[in-house]
Amino acid sequence: MASGDPMTEGPLPSWNDGAAKSAILDFVARVTKEGGAEFVAPAERIATFDNDGTLWCEQPLQVQFFFGRDRLTALADADPSLKSRELFGAYLNHDMPAIVKFGKKGLMEVGAFVHAGMTEDEFRTYARDWLATSKHPKLGRLFTQLTYLPQVELLAYLRASGFKTFIVSGGGIDLIRAFAEERYGIPPEQVIGSSVKTRFELQEAKGEIVKLPELNSFDDREVKPANINLHIGRRPILAFGNSDGDLAMLRYCLTGPGPRLGLVLHHDDSAREFAYDRDFKLSPLVEALDRAEDYGITLVSMKGDWRTVFDAA
Amino acid sequence: MASGDPMTEGPLPSWNDGAAKSAILDFVARVTKEGGAEFVAPAERIATFDNDGTLWCEQPLQVQFFFGRDRLTALADADPSLKSRELFGAYLNHDMPAIVKFGKKGLMEVGAFVHAGMTEDEFRTYARDWLATSKHPKLGRLFTQLTYLPQVELLAYLRASGFKTFIVSGGGIDLIRAFAEERYGIPPEQVIGSSVKTRFELQEAKGEIVKLPELNSFDDREVKPANINLHIGRRPILAFGNSDGDLAMLRYCLTGPGPRLGLVLHHDDSAREFAYDRDFKLSPLVEALDRAEDYGITLVSMKGDWRTVFDAA
Repeated sequence: MASGDPMTEGPLPSWNDGAAKSAILDFVARVTKEGGAEFVAPAERIATFDNDGTLWCEQPLQVQFFFGRDRLTALADADPSLKSRELFGAYLNHDMPAIVKFGKKGLMEVGAFVHAGMTEDEFRTYARDWLATSKHPKLGRLFTQLTYLPQVELLAYLRASGFKTFIVSGGGIDLIRAFAEERYGIPPEQVIGSSVKTRFELQEAKGEIVKLPELNSFDDREVKPANINLHIGRRPILAFGNSDGDLAMLRYCLTGPGPRLGLVLHHDDSAREFAYDRDFKLSPLVEALDRAEDYGITLVSMKGDWRTVFDAA
Repeated sequence: MASGDPMTEGPLPSWNDGAAKSAILDFVARVTKEGGAEFVAPAERIATFDNDGTLWCEQPLQVQFFFGRDRLTALADADPSLKSRELFGAYLNHDMPAIVKFGKKGLMEVGAFVHAGMTEDEFRTYARDWLATSKHPKLGRLFTQLTYLPQVELLAYLRASGFKTFIVSGGGIDLIRAFAEERYGIPPEQVIGSSVKTRFELQEAKGEIVKLPELNSFDDREVKPANINLHIGRRPILAFGNSDGDLAMLRYCLTGPGPRLGLVLHHDDSAREFAYDRDFKLSPLVEALDRAEDYGITLVSMKGDWRTVFDAA
């Protein structure tokens, strides 16, 4: 079903009425009510969102995987010796147990290796070209069409309510920046993610940022709050994730003073998307699910809370 | 002389008419003229400013020095063995040749050591208390009153013209964040600087960011463009510095496509502030001065281009 008319249905037309939507609307009403007991100044209205599995689909593997594998395939065609490295062989052969064994960090290492030597401008062009044509293997849509419509509405609603919205992702920062402004309305300077080290150099008198084959930051778990502090310098008052990789960010948000809202998207919708939680070995949801009530986390059911998942293709 | 009336004098009342002011006004007019050949979309209007010596006074030493030394003095009172470390001894004894020998990186190392173990909240409180009471040894003003009025006007003018203004400093990111919003109108998420590594941990069930005694990034010279890429993800179209530590940032800005403006403040005003350039060993201005024309850098003379330096105390 397509989303409703925002003029008659309010600000989150793709969300069903229920506890999750009420928690969001109530929180925003409280922190924006001037003179209210829980008013938060606009400058402090920081909202942080995970990306993979929170703002777009991460099944059967994070989009980053397909992106890195395609580049690795091209490089291995030119240099077959790459196939003999165990990590690379796992990716080239789509060997799921081996890919899972190397985990999200393996994904980052592949990314760091295959894009080394590119300038930021070259990478951006390459990433945008790839995103413009690459489709999800099962759903048949462009990856960029796998962003969740209810979340795009939520981001816009928060910004309209004076919030500044940030992405805090385990995925590569530059790949997300290549589409986040267009798809989420989030500019590059509000994207935080995993990153490689870079070097500034003059190439034919033009200053360039060159990617190095070395990880700078793997933005997962306890590193997320540390990177929020580095990039934002303020504790978010709203955080949204979908796995235990987001738990530190959620607790960082929820244990601060004043009003707080921490949300976790539960993928329980095998009909419209996928149903998974503790069994997704690359990015499991266990503690944040089992202890949601203790930690003050609001669970969002994709099946129950979302009227629509994707926008009309 | 106090600044003039902006209603009759235009947007930069503390700037004298001249080549530098004209270059700024002309640049802003060109990039904001809709339909013009050099129009730049608001999202791309990124302006980056060095802090020490560009936005506030850095003589006889960067404010960071006094800040770190005061904390080191307190720590050395409790643990006199610290005095035997050569770097710390230099600071405790105000031994200028030794301080210069250790350079800006020594400054960062002192900062990393003396604040280790503090949480971000503790540091912010400590820094704000220090800034609220600490005065410049010669000028007799609070350090926070040593911000340059013409630059505060320029930052406001740029923001009013759709720019997003960032600080990109060799100084410690958290000290700058403790006053930049109030004094410059620049929020924490638009401050980039040198930083230490941090760790997220739960202390009595509250999530805290704890400073570690290890440098994460020394944001000087070629590291500035790399950190601009990490934090902003866009090449600035305007950059403003005052030393060779800013040269890589200036060239990164100036060698991009489209309209660009790179400015260097020349401290040539011994009557109202200080006169120095290539002789300031901690942060010399040599190449950016000698090759300004080659590189397309606009020099700003404090003596000639600024009607006022500091605001009325």
